[in-house]
Amino acid sequence: MENTKLVGLVIGALLVALSFLMLVPVLADVVAQSGDWQAFFSSAVITGFAGGALMLANETDQRDLGQRETFVVTTLAWIVISGFAALPLCFSQAQMSYTDAFFESMSGFTTTGSTVMSGLDSMAPGILLWRALIQWVGGVGIILTAVAILPFLRIGGMQLFRTESSDRSDKVMPRPGQTAVAIGEVYLLLTLLCAFAYSAAGMNSFDAITHAMTTLATGGYSTHDASFGYFNSAMIDWIGVIFMLAGSLPLLLYVQSVRGSGETLWHDTQVRSFVTMTFGVAIVMAIWLSARGDYTFVGALRYTAFSVASVVSTTGFANTDYTIWGPFASMAFLILTFVGGCTGSTAGGIKIFRFQILGMLLRSQNRQTLYPHVAQTLRFGDRTVSRDVVFSVALFVFIYVATVLFIGLALTAFGLDLVTALSASATALGNVGPGVGAIVGPSGNFSTLPDGAKWILSLAMLLGRLELMTVLIMFSRDFWQR
Amino acid sequence: MENTKLVGLVIGALLVALSFLMLVPVLADVVAQSGDWQAFFSSAVITGFAGGALMLANETDQRDLGQRETFVVTTLAWIVISGFAALPLCFSQAQMSYTDAFFESMSGFTTTGSTVMSGLDSMAPGILLWRALIQWVGGVGIILTAVAILPFLRIGGMQLFRTESSDRSDKVMPRPGQTAVAIGEVYLLLTLLCAFAYSAAGMNSFDAITHAMTTLATGGYSTHDASFGYFNSAMIDWIGVIFMLAGSLPLLLYVQSVRGSGETLWHDTQVRSFVTMTFGVAIVMAIWLSARGDYTFVGALRYTAFSVASVVSTTGFANTDYTIWGPFASMAFLILTFVGGCTGSTAGGIKIFRFQILGMLLRSQNRQTLYPHVAQTLRFGDRTVSRDVVFSVALFVFIYVATVLFIGLALTAFGLDLVTALSASATALGNVGPGVGAIVGPSGNFSTLPDGAKWILSLAMLLGRLELMTVLIMFSRDFWQR
Repeated sequence: MENTKLVGLVIGALLVALSFLMLVPVLADVVAQSGDWQAFFSSAVITGFAGGALMLANETDQRDLGQRETFVVTTLAWIVISGFAALPLCFSQAQMSYTDAFFESMSGFTTTGSTVMSGLDSMAPGILLWRALIQWVGGVGIILTAVAILPFLRIGGMQLFRTESSDRSDKVMPRPGQTAVAIGEVYLLLTLLCAFAYSAAGMNSFDAITHAMTTLATGGYSTHDASFGYFNSAMIDWIGVIFMLAGSLPLLLYVQSVRGSGETLWHDTQVRSFVTMTFGVAIVMAIWLSARGDYTFVGALRYTAFSVASVVSTTGFANTDYTIWGPFASMAFLILTFVGGCTGSTAGGIKIFRFQILGMLLRSQNRQTLYPHVAQTLRFGDRTVSRDVVFSVALFVFIYVATVLFIGLALTAFGLDLVTALSASATALGNVGPGVGAIVGPSGNFSTLPDGAKWILSLAMLLGRLELMTVLIMFSRDFWQR
Repeated sequence: MENTKLVGLVIGALLVALSFLMLVPVLADVVAQSGDWQAFFSSAVITGFAGGALMLANETDQRDLGQRETFVVTTLAWIVISGFAALPLCFSQAQMSYTDAFFESMSGFTTTGSTVMSGLDSMAPGILLWRALIQWVGGVGIILTAVAILPFLRIGGMQLFRTESSDRSDKVMPRPGQTAVAIGEVYLLLTLLCAFAYSAAGMNSFDAITHAMTTLATGGYSTHDASFGYFNSAMIDWIGVIFMLAGSLPLLLYVQSVRGSGETLWHDTQVRSFVTMTFGVAIVMAIWLSARGDYTFVGALRYTAFSVASVVSTTGFANTDYTIWGPFASMAFLILTFVGGCTGSTAGGIKIFRFQILGMLLRSQNRQTLYPHVAQTLRFGDRTVSRDVVFSVALFVFIYVATVLFIGLALTAFGLDLVTALSASATALGNVGPGVGAIVGPSGNFSTLPDGAKWILSLAMLLGRLELMTVLIMFSRDFWQR
């Protein structure tokens, strides 16, 4: 690493920004006359002081992060920010242990949404707003990371999405700064739209705003223990379905669609497959559920569409507990936990484009077998897929599955049963939220897990959020060799 | 398909051979004065008649199987032979339903070893010998398929093992016929050695011969319900460990080692990794088990080495029930179920060389990320690994995992719980034998599963045995297009 000072400067600046963000819940608690404002204010002071000190100690004129530094800064940023954002949870009326607070904070910033908290309905607004805010900010953070950083680090095949690559003639926004601002605008606009819709359907303003934030972030934190089950409204559920899916589409495509250049949303192969798959699975499940006689088809579709959208968008809201539908449904949702949304969104998981590339590879390999003398090329949309992209994608999927298994193994070492361990591992790595079983299922709560399991799951959320390799490459010998 | 006649002729010839094989248990039952000889004799007549009719109806001078025909013949052979080999199980004193008999027969020929039979200890010798024979013959069948057929069909990266490829200067046996005979000789020799060792350690001749057959086949059928637990002998257990591992090494390497040309066994990178990994895991587990105070280290090692060797060699013998060691051990064995032995052996699973190739790919991709302008090449032993091989391997692993999940999903539709469904799916696809849980665990028995689940598992065993793509390619549209 040539430039550790710049790493410190960036992290310091992010902490200062975080300390300002903490003033929002201070305001909310002051208005609501809750004593919790002190927890947020003292955390803001500590965070701001730490960030300022880090900035002063690392003053430098250098402004170009090298490749190795980018890996370090990206990983460290997520860990350090989660570490400080956990402070108000410790200091507040919730009185959480630091382990619990860190888990909740990491689950928030990674937009996972697994929670160790209960009794949300009677909590002060500050803490509820804080949970929504860290998911919302984490969401925009990961979109910018996915659009601006990961493609250039060649992570998991995302080099396919280099917007400035030379094979693209339709350069909508030549400068990265402009792209970031445009994405931020779209994200804010969608959140406002969602909040208005929730509010019109009957949520109060506070619930509408916080749920809109965690919907677009595909995070899944709610202000009620029963999540969407609290509202018990089909209209609110369907609005949730629409905006959870909206949050799992590539944000850059909205920008391009609005500006009338580039592909429109529905022409994008990833978007089409994702939306078709989601509704296809929801409809098949609704037919299956209504055939068992528990629901009418339309009644069933409300629950299956919401649950499927919640899992594939990696949000994690619940309007019912899908595990009561039996092992077939539980297994189906466990498989869906691996899928994920589109790349360049707030969704986690393996993501649709990787399945599409492997599907194309399968077809081309079959043809190569049957017609050994005909050359096969791989195309994704209007781009030729290079060998390098296919290698990255295949490796990503392999490491993803292996990580789910080994995180699951580590969890069993703390005494978790197989289903809880495997589904907790898969849901954390996919940044989904709920798993299968009494503890980590949609009606469960992660609070009863042993502390060791919470730290392992926090690591899994981080790994999943940063597409595994951003973190794992730092454990290779080559990374530290000059 | 240009030559359906030749397909019929080959299948017919295999059935005639199978009918002769059925005369062996006839002899055993006649000697033991068991009435079961009639079950085998009538099955031999039916099978021989069917095979003969098929041969007569498909007489042809053509002797060259096309590529498409080879896929069809390989898949059909395993299904039809299992179908006829199931007959004596229906007709005998065991009085099994055809579903049970087919499951047992497919489990035998694929050297999986999952069983629906109990009360083995008191059964007539014919039926016990038959179960051992079909595993032994299935074992040599799969080695020859792996060495002579799959590399040329470009299945799962096995094109890496084309023995006649031009980048090999040490052509030990230029003609495939000679190779097949040499492999058969080694297989027979190892089986005899194993039988002598078992016998010297205290097994009676019948047990020694049948267990030697199912050990080298890495099949795992026993003549006792308690499997190796029946003998309760550390010596016999360790002999089992050695020959289970011997059966999971590439048989061709023995031939080359004996003839003094090519690599010797221990110089082979796949063999080294496999053996090191197996004993490494066994030792770590033994330390863990003895630290819990249940066993001494040496006592624990006997059980962990046997169980680990049994699972990674995909044999499936049990000298204890590893699931009583708790969820950590169960999860570890579930992961080991995916691993498998070396290619070109009787072992199933994903197999060591595929992990090695993915490991090399990971290293090379990391380097490519860190040094974008340095070209990276992949090497396996003394060979350069082509892009094509890496694509095949990556695709194989992806489809393998997806198949485990979807077979698991299909099993839950029959009401199986998640752990039973997932581990039964993984153990069938890996041709291992036992899974996790009360029904499919090492102390369990597959007989109580619903019939539908047994057919699905039979399909999974077939898919795993033929390295998935041999079967699955026939479901692609391209396969049937001219």
